[in-house]
Amino acid sequence: MTELSPTELRQQIRRGDMRGNTSGYAAGYAQCNIVILPADWAADFLKFCQLNPKPCPLVAMAGQPGDVTLPALGEIDIRSDVPSYRVFENGALADEVHDISKLWREDLVTFALGCSFSFEEALLADGLEVRNVSEGVNVPMYRTNIDCNPAGPFAGKMVVSMRPFRAADAIRAVQICTRFPSVHGAPIHLGDPALIGIDDLQTPDYGDAVSVGAEELPLFWGCGVTPQVALEAARPPLCITHSPGCMLVTDMPNSKLAML
Amino acid sequence: MTELSPTELRQQIRRGDMRGNTSGYAAGYAQCNIVILPADWAADFLKFCQLNPKPCPLVAMAGQPGDVTLPALGEIDIRSDVPSYRVFENGALADEVHDISKLWREDLVTFALGCSFSFEEALLADGLEVRNVSEGVNVPMYRTNIDCNPAGPFAGKMVVSMRPFRAADAIRAVQICTRFPSVHGAPIHLGDPALIGIDDLQTPDYGDAVSVGAEELPLFWGCGVTPQVALEAARPPLCITHSPGCMLVTDMPNSKLAML
Repeated sequence: MTELSPTELRQQIRRGDMRGNTSGYAAGYAQCNIVILPADWAADFLKFCQLNPKPCPLVAMAGQPGDVTLPALGEIDIRSDVPSYRVFENGALADEVHDISKLWREDLVTFALGCSFSFEEALLADGLEVRNVSEGVNVPMYRTNIDCNPAGPFAGKMVVSMRPFRAADAIRAVQICTRFPSVHGAPIHLGDPALIGIDDLQTPDYGDAVSVGAEELPLFWGCGVTPQVALEAARPPLCITHSPGCMLVTDMPNSKLAML
Repeated sequence: MTELSPTELRQQIRRGDMRGNTSGYAAGYAQCNIVILPADWAADFLKFCQLNPKPCPLVAMAGQPGDVTLPALGEIDIRSDVPSYRVFENGALADEVHDISKLWREDLVTFALGCSFSFEEALLADGLEVRNVSEGVNVPMYRTNIDCNPAGPFAGKMVVSMRPFRAADAIRAVQICTRFPSVHGAPIHLGDPALIGIDDLQTPDYGDAVSVGAEELPLFWGCGVTPQVALEAARPPLCITHSPGCMLVTDMPNSKLAML
């Protein structure tokens, strides 16, 4: 399964033959967080992404309301090509589905945001250990005390993901991730978690705890859960996202996301 | 005085009118550590620099033994253009002079190594506070427990300089300094000093202590004192260096040292 091309994998997903987590699939290609909003909410959400590029790095968006394609990312029909979708009504989870063709409206605008899978691949390729990968769990995520820059109804605290490294590897991780601004870029914090409002690394707000060695520093990256929290607070009448871990797999090589 | 061009400043130095510390002079232009060795020691020293680029970043070297020029760095006569020289015989300081014309020999080879003044300028230009600059003291330097890669008679522990930053500024400092590999590049360590064999930040082995805030992390860079320690241990019959802080001022804009 992991040797499928992104196009082959999306065809399976489109047919309903693959409905689960995309982690580890189509290695080398970017996967994206998806947010779909009515057009009258889209301008503010676009501004929210622009003002908060670390947690909300915009990789692509639909050219027009109602447009179901994302040609920059491949031959995509956004109504069927994500393995699992969450449907939110007035900020509350209303349904989880594998196809949104019946929900589609001509005023819906699609946003594709970068995902940490891309930079994790770059870290692993450089020989670094990514703890959540080596321990086979979801990355731990935490609500911080850092306010996002608000845009219209969208506001909230930044959510971060955490990966621990020894100091020399931490420096290398900063260098590698700096090259990838569209997939969260460099960490936003390292060292003492309390300085950004995190009391206990072993009790993440989302995902799973990972071990942190005595000689390791925790590094914190802006996380794609941040826009989901802002969306829940903004309570748009309709919002559709991917289900956690069930990303849009694109034809964009991760290497093309490197700014140099 | 600080508004002199590098060429004007070197002319003053050449005439003997300026014999002191070059810190703050010729802003925007690279200053270099100088090492001058007999030709039969030069090949091993070159290898030592190549094997230890973080503490010993080679910016330029003389084309031939006996050559007193460094055309890549400006119109330079290395016998007279450094404000103050230290003369070592068999590893021991034998003299401190302002001109080495009378000591010059046709077998001497000149090396110019990058200096942290260049990256400090880049950090300051980005709006970061460099503690040793704001406190008006020499940067604190420490012997670590990190072995340099040996080359012939040259070996020893790495010496590092330390500058403290809050986490977000530390991440930015890593990014900025990564652009400047020829002036020590990115830090080699950050966080717990004990992990690299430093017991007490307040008692540096060279330079002056600086204050470190409770919410700050110490960042450690490879330091140009490293080759001096290796030279003292190797005990070449003759070695001439600049005196501490009395650097070769070059015509090389610091911006040209940026790799991107």
